[in-house]
Amino acid sequence: MSHPVSPLAPKSVPDCPEIRGVRLATAEAGIRYKGRTDVLYVALDEGASAAGVFTRSRCPSAPVDWCRANLAGGTARAVVVNSGNANAFTGGKGRDSTRLTAEIAARAAGCRPEEVMLASTGVIGEPLDATRFEGVLADCASRAAPGGWLEAARAIMTTDTFPKVATRSVELGNGERVVINGIAKGSGMIAPDMATMLSFVFTDAAIAAPVLQTLVSEGADTSFNCTTVDGDTSTSDTLLAFATGRSGGKAIENADDPRLPAFKAALDDLLIDLAQQVARDGEGARKFVTVKVESAESDASAHRIAMSIANSPLVKTAVAGEDANWGRVVMAVGKAGEPADRDLLSISFGDVRVAHQGARDPDYDEAEASAAMKKDEVTITVDLGLGEGKARVWTCDLTKAYVEINGDYRS
Amino acid sequence: MSHPVSPLAPKSVPDCPEIRGVRLATAEAGIRYKGRTDVLYVALDEGASAAGVFTRSRCPSAPVDWCRANLAGGTARAVVVNSGNANAFTGGKGRDSTRLTAEIAARAAGCRPEEVMLASTGVIGEPLDATRFEGVLADCASRAAPGGWLEAARAIMTTDTFPKVATRSVELGNGERVVINGIAKGSGMIAPDMATMLSFVFTDAAIAAPVLQTLVSEGADTSFNCTTVDGDTSTSDTLLAFATGRSGGKAIENADDPRLPAFKAALDDLLIDLAQQVARDGEGARKFVTVKVESAESDASAHRIAMSIANSPLVKTAVAGEDANWGRVVMAVGKAGEPADRDLLSISFGDVRVAHQGARDPDYDEAEASAAMKKDEVTITVDLGLGEGKARVWTCDLTKAYVEINGDYRS
Repeated sequence: MSHPVSPLAPKSVPDCPEIRGVRLATAEAGIRYKGRTDVLYVALDEGASAAGVFTRSRCPSAPVDWCRANLAGGTARAVVVNSGNANAFTGGKGRDSTRLTAEIAARAAGCRPEEVMLASTGVIGEPLDATRFEGVLADCASRAAPGGWLEAARAIMTTDTFPKVATRSVELGNGERVVINGIAKGSGMIAPDMATMLSFVFTDAAIAAPVLQTLVSEGADTSFNCTTVDGDTSTSDTLLAFATGRSGGKAIENADDPRLPAFKAALDDLLIDLAQQVARDGEGARKFVTVKVESAESDASAHRIAMSIANSPLVKTAVAGEDANWGRVVMAVGKAGEPADRDLLSISFGDVRVAHQGARDPDYDEAEASAAMKKDEVTITVDLGLGEGKARVWTCDLTKAYVEINGDYRS
Repeated sequence: MSHPVSPLAPKSVPDCPEIRGVRLATAEAGIRYKGRTDVLYVALDEGASAAGVFTRSRCPSAPVDWCRANLAGGTARAVVVNSGNANAFTGGKGRDSTRLTAEIAARAAGCRPEEVMLASTGVIGEPLDATRFEGVLADCASRAAPGGWLEAARAIMTTDTFPKVATRSVELGNGERVVINGIAKGSGMIAPDMATMLSFVFTDAAIAAPVLQTLVSEGADTSFNCTTVDGDTSTSDTLLAFATGRSGGKAIENADDPRLPAFKAALDDLLIDLAQQVARDGEGARKFVTVKVESAESDASAHRIAMSIANSPLVKTAVAGEDANWGRVVMAVGKAGEPADRDLLSISFGDVRVAHQGARDPDYDEAEASAAMKKDEVTITVDLGLGEGKARVWTCDLTKAYVEINGDYRS
């Protein structure tokens, strides 16, 4: 189960500052893995706003059901995340398990179970024994401290080869400075359809829950929902955001607050950072791929075409083989079912235009295209020549290591 | 580019009888490959009916455009198929190339260019030099003979590891006996969305073109359109059928002809045979997989769920790893976006029910499930518990060999 760190991992890990009103602890509950942390406990000071987006899977995990049911209050006092077991497809036992986990955490945090948000990741279909949290969460609550963001990201990893953290500091335009920290996990079963596998974002900004919900929904659309590793949407995709309001500023309560644009820009940027880290840690990935689609009939159409390219096994294996195989890109454009005129298409790999107006570019130089494909980061740009729509999505190549990782018995 | 024959290849190759009114020849035109045939020429006696279905790709190949434009007449005198170059995404040159090929074939066959059907398969984006057919097709026309079906199937192979032929003989209920022969090619870029990569079916039955068209459209829906190797729909998918009418019977001219059900049953069966051979020759395949979805809200819904399972890289790698990983099947059901109730789902591998009513089957035996996964042929059955809809699709596993084959430079 242990694989070498992705060569596409960020070269340095940012130092996440403390967020007022947020304290963290990790622990070993022995859910599945040995000798590593598998529980993250987050304590939130009273008054934190909460918002979230979840998988659109018709077969969501029990924790996703739990969060959906309890997020309506727009507030939370604790978050419990475990790795090793997704508590998905576990029937009535799964529901009992989420309730028991929330009850144990609520006792530790001194709040109601409904104020505890839950997320689980790991194997699907195995019952999660929540009694393992007994004692563990009380201990976490007593130890919880403002630092330890990297350890938090590490505790929620499954097939991830590196922990994913990101941080931004924003001046809201009135001298008020707030911090946003985020962590994420995800490597396979990644085609988020609302949010990624698991991501948690915290800020000391004061933002009312409905405004935070809008920010998170919009932010997921331009970040995690533009990421795919294998086209396989998880049962457990969860993005939760919490705003403690401890920065000292007055709460942002409506969409036209002048401080919102700066915050939104920083949040979107942080979410894109995390989403790209997920693609960079795609199972078996050796190349980080950006797919840009331009001049489509609409942005939505451009996005569907970009996803068709990013999910095509033939395009992804061509990238793995460093093959500037534009024919496969044409195929993926064609199968998307979106408006496209073969004879207007242009396709570039990096800066090298390989196809123009529906045929091989007469100026195309095979050596230049090959050089572009040899890089760690490959950008595929498709110009449809139809309209103003555009999209950008991130993925990785498809290598033998992906097959190896996922062909392991009951990974 | 040469790979060992798929272990899933049929154990024996049927002996295709002659079809009155059809003559075949193959040749080496040196389009791309060395030392093998790459052209199939089929001569049809005057009066043959023709029908076809084609890719729904928005970026179809030039030969697909040619056939669509010229099939309206419902008749054909010759078919030219080449491997090595798909003549797809070749712009104006591609159109010129199809016209020149049809003109050369028409001179050889003594017919109009519009009576020549064309299909090409191989690399996308490279101009196809049709002058290579000069001389070759005239020679083919002079050599064309009623036998040689296996050689015909061999000439149109690309990454296929075995030639695909099938034959049926049908008694039409009135003492009249007719023969249907079919050939197909396809191994990767297989997610037919009307028909497979390339398939050609011939019969000596007398069937009017509109009736033949209905038969072919319906037959494709229950055969090739139920097959996927990698979810990548080709630019070139083509299924053409020809009925020479040389059996001596009176022509079948409408849908309620009493002889039609027997013919349709045999044709559907032959198309399923060919479609399954394509899945059995999926690039890198080591397991032939049947996905059955039952008790869905509708047949269409069942089909979309079945395809979601059959196209999931995580399900396919689990099959390759002989892992009865029902969690990934749940994931693929969930992401299909179709009606599904997690807590009603049952999932079986072979005869072993591993999950029932949304959780692990209490009677589930890991050893039995493992044994089911070790077989060459694996059936995954999902019962949704909702309605009467059902579907059955065929695919193969996803192995490292798929990545290897498609990561080769400019395969």
